Amino acid sequence: MKRTTYAGLVDESFVGQEVVLKGWVQKRRDLGALIFISLRDREGIVQLVFSEEFSADALKVADEMRSEYVIEIHGMVKARDAKAINADMKTGKIEVEVHEASILAEAKTTPFEIVDGVEASDDLRLKYRYLDLRRPEMQRNLKIRSKVTKATHDFLDEEGFFDIETPYLAKSTPEGARDYLVPSRVYPGSFYALPQSPQLFKQLLMGAGFDRYYQVARAFRDEDLRGDRQPEFTQLDVEMSFMDQEEIQELVGAWVARIMKDAIDVDVQPEDFPVLDWAESMARFGTDKPDLRIAYELKDISPIAAKSAFGVFSGTIENGGVVKGIAVPGGADNYSRKDLDKLTQYIERFGAKGLAWVKVTDDGFNGPVAKFLNDQHDEIVAAMDAKVGDILLFVAAKEKVVAGALDYLRRQTAADLNLIDENKWAFAWVVNWPLFEYQEEDDRWIAAHHPFTMPNVEDLHFLDEGEDPHQAHAQSYDLVLNGYELGSGSIRIHTMDVQEKMLKALGFTNEAAHEAFGFLLDAMEFGFPPLGGIALGLDRLAMLLAGQENIREVIAFPKNASAKDVMSDAPQPVAKQQIVTDLGLTAPVYAENAGQPNMAEE
Amino acid sequence: MKRTTYAGLVDESFVGQEVVLKGWVQKRRDLGALIFISLRDREGIVQLVFSEEFSADALKVADEMRSEYVIEIHGMVKARDAKAINADMKTGKIEVEVHEASILAEAKTTPFEIVDGVEASDDLRLKYRYLDLRRPEMQRNLKIRSKVTKATHDFLDEEGFFDIETPYLAKSTPEGARDYLVPSRVYPGSFYALPQSPQLFKQLLMGAGFDRYYQVARAFRDEDLRGDRQPEFTQLDVEMSFMDQEEIQELVGAWVARIMKDAIDVDVQPEDFPVLDWAESMARFGTDKPDLRIAYELKDISPIAAKSAFGVFSGTIENGGVVKGIAVPGGADNYSRKDLDKLTQYIERFGAKGLAWVKVTDDGFNGPVAKFLNDQHDEIVAAMDAKVGDILLFVAAKEKVVAGALDYLRRQTAADLNLIDENKWAFAWVVNWPLFEYQEEDDRWIAAHHPFTMPNVEDLHFLDEGEDPHQAHAQSYDLVLNGYELGSGSIRIHTMDVQEKMLKALGFTNEAAHEAFGFLLDAMEFGFPPLGGIALGLDRLAMLLAGQENIREVIAFPKNASAKDVMSDAPQPVAKQQIVTDLGLTAPVYAENAGQPNMAEE
Repeated sequence: MKRTTYAGLVDESFVGQEVVLKGWVQKRRDLGALIFISLRDREGIVQLVFSEEFSADALKVADEMRSEYVIEIHGMVKARDAKAINADMKTGKIEVEVHEASILAEAKTTPFEIVDGVEASDDLRLKYRYLDLRRPEMQRNLKIRSKVTKATHDFLDEEGFFDIETPYLAKSTPEGARDYLVPSRVYPGSFYALPQSPQLFKQLLMGAGFDRYYQVARAFRDEDLRGDRQPEFTQLDVEMSFMDQEEIQELVGAWVARIMKDAIDVDVQPEDFPVLDWAESMARFGTDKPDLRIAYELKDISPIAAKSAFGVFSGTIENGGVVKGIAVPGGADNYSRKDLDKLTQYIERFGAKGLAWVKVTDDGFNGPVAKFLNDQHDEIVAAMDAKVGDILLFVAAKEKVVAGALDYLRRQTAADLNLIDENKWAFAWVVNWPLFEYQEEDDRWIAAHHPFTMPNVEDLHFLDEGEDPHQAHAQSYDLVLNGYELGSGSIRIHTMDVQEKMLKALGFTNEAAHEAFGFLLDAMEFGFPPLGGIALGLDRLAMLLAGQENIREVIAFPKNASAKDVMSDAPQPVAKQQIVTDLGLTAPVYAENAGQPNMAEE
Repeated sequence: MKRTTYAGLVDESFVGQEVVLKGWVQKRRDLGALIFISLRDREGIVQLVFSEEFSADALKVADEMRSEYVIEIHGMVKARDAKAINADMKTGKIEVEVHEASILAEAKTTPFEIVDGVEASDDLRLKYRYLDLRRPEMQRNLKIRSKVTKATHDFLDEEGFFDIETPYLAKSTPEGARDYLVPSRVYPGSFYALPQSPQLFKQLLMGAGFDRYYQVARAFRDEDLRGDRQPEFTQLDVEMSFMDQEEIQELVGAWVARIMKDAIDVDVQPEDFPVLDWAESMARFGTDKPDLRIAYELKDISPIAAKSAFGVFSGTIENGGVVKGIAVPGGADNYSRKDLDKLTQYIERFGAKGLAWVKVTDDGFNGPVAKFLNDQHDEIVAAMDAKVGDILLFVAAKEKVVAGALDYLRRQTAADLNLIDENKWAFAWVVNWPLFEYQEEDDRWIAAHHPFTMPNVEDLHFLDEGEDPHQAHAQSYDLVLNGYELGSGSIRIHTMDVQEKMLKALGFTNEAAHEAFGFLLDAMEFGFPPLGGIALGLDRLAMLLAGQENIREVIAFPKNASAKDVMSDAPQPVAKQQIVTDLGLTAPVYAENAGQPNMAEE
């Protein structure tokens, strides 16, 4: 029997029609002479009715059916009695009287029920991922992801982009995170690296004259995992020639608008995306990826604090620090001392020594430090744009500490008090980034974006001998959505003289630069066009559009927090022959008498 | 200046319009007061004219221009004088008078000219791939490839397939070719494998209820390279539930027709694709991927040969062999003894001991063995479907040797005599394959397709205890185009009892089967739908559609014959710290005093 439609699509328009449906048994209600089966497929659930009246044979088969059995049925769609109508179900006005039925596959009891909001540990969900993915929510998540890529293919194809694949067995490059390596059998002791991005290849494709390239590209980073990181992730990667930053931002905006429309039917106006200077974003929000759904911003009260009776404030200013704060609307009644102690504790991780807070009341400030601040009450209220009922949270420290702490406090308080409109899609561009960024751990300057980022034209001279390159800003642009960085783009350097200066500023000797990027430097000598691009993180974008909080929810087969696929149990030891003989490597498990299990060894 | 159109698109419809063009200098003709520049971009070439009359400044800039310089110009499109019209060029009726010009990037002399039919070694082309890719032919090749994937996205999306990504960091599986391995840092001594196909994952996605999945998936095999192999290659991979073989073939046919239409504007009728039984294909063409553009087929003259005066023929039959031949139209006049000696020599590699040939003339057979065969002249001519002017090529040996040799001879002679219509697209389905295939090197039976292939229903009993599983045939289907295997598909096993029997027949102990495929066997216990699919080789498909003979021509950055990227020089030794400290491995170059160069070591 050939399926006529999906179970989840059978609505009242099918009444009186015969249908063949195939899918999974969601639930079975056995009334003896009458059996009800909820049949599930990827589009939804429909109610089947088995009875002797319709088919004694089918009823007998239904008697055997259990949850998650795979079945096929042939039946007639009937309108339900008025009292049996389920208004919450798309198929709730009808049911299917079954005339023929068969079981295509049986099922054991599943380790968790196949429903949304399942109570199962993450590892259990991952181990039985093929069952977890049956849940309607996971089906929807991956469907949205699929629509994001389809919208991308459609839009970029219409705009004249070619879909070009770049290698996954590539060269290890010295910048960036730790590479995943792939040992070579032909050259023992040599390794390919799985790319952290197609960056060099896409620049070369512009040098090759393709003009507009895109790729849905997998990328790999062997980093310690966090909530929103995976060893492999996917980029919607584009590069184009002969376009300036403004033109690229315009095109990317239109692309993102298309994705929003096609994937979740939301209209956004890219011409209205705010464009924030990086420095402005840091000043107003304490972060380079501000969540613009939150109305209140960081306010600098340093000039007031300098004259403050509160020693912590005035002392901080004297020592070259700043005092900034946020006014959280309605916070006065909603934060207990205990809550505030918790917030204080949390911001210690940003280096903040403490949190100063006052509640704004009709009778002036209220709280432990109110007595020091009430003298400047009106000045502070004006600077903070505060009103009665607000709580004011201040951090006094070095600029960077204040930014980190207040960015956190802004997002946390907005979440606590439900001040974020979950139906809002707040895009923004953050532009004009510093070209370099200081890395404290290694006490060195690294490229803020990557070593191929073009400085602002008026800043080019900073790369010259005797100047301070770290003052240069870049032709770079990040796209931000609801407080997440969706993608990071820039105009690239396209001439060798600038590229060599940039690499020198990053501490590369001429020799090391050519060892690492020689082929790109070579290519720049043969007529390289002006170029730029961006890569959007597909996982994060799909996560946001699906309303999820972890990218694992939009990846079919993710790794767990220790980079393990707990379903297939990868990684694993493999045959000694392959490691030792073929690749010329020695791994601990293959050392003599290591006594390790080695399943594939003969 | 913002580009107004591509150089290659400026035709007579632009006459009288101002244009801004950006691209590469193809050629420069300097007549002193007049300079002609051919400007190239991805869409083609247009002629620019610089003269004092239009702009003295621009003329001065043009004087600096050299081949492959990147330039931008602003000018006016004019019709050419009648005598200057170049009918071979799309833009040959016009030229652009240049009013403003600037050089965006200079270029050294390129190691080879940027034209089609370039005379450069493969390694030189690969080393300067970014220049090689500038050639119009390579631009066209990758454009066709891009259109193949776009057509795939469009068609499969319309048919309700979800684009779902599966992991590249996966588990090593015991079947198939050698895996590329990726050492794990978290679990030293353990390895991920780069997948040879998404086979297991796509089956699990059907178990997860997605119903229809597709992916443009990279796959990896660490095999010795041949002309049409690369360490990484791309599959157009699909899987679907609840469909039988016929329905899948119908859908795939429609998909391929869409690709042909969208990528190269060719109409094919999938309902007319011949469907050949595997055994029939082997008998008629000596191969399971027949080139149906060649009219002549293998003819079995064993019954005649058994009675032959030619001892080689009769002796072969006595020893259980066969005698088959082909009648090559017009071959009598076109093959010298020397040519035939060469063919004879070549077929030795298939195990053939010799080649018997006769020319068909008005006076009977002609050639060294004609005297033995002329007695049976009419019988042979009838069996071979031969006519005067043909040459008959016979091979007498075991079935398999005869098949290999005559398949070769059929294709070679057709190529020699230009008997192949290059404008024809000969698709075919080859179905009903043996389930197992005997591997001589290892003296064992392996899965002809893969271990998840569903046997024909009437052959299921062959997998039972005491029966001979090697007699079973499979629900499998290969799609063939012009003598190339485009893709290999099958209905999969969806119940554990059959899967376990299959793995047992392949020599897996129960324990080894669960070690290797346990998660799939587990999944089959929780309600697995009937399923099937196919994977088309994108590289080969794009190669054929682009009229190329090597997949390297449709891959932007391929590896060379020793799996090396000669442009970026990958693979390479990497930092000792990463190998030894992070991954816990020992590679020869990091052994004490190995004295090997190690660029990244500190």
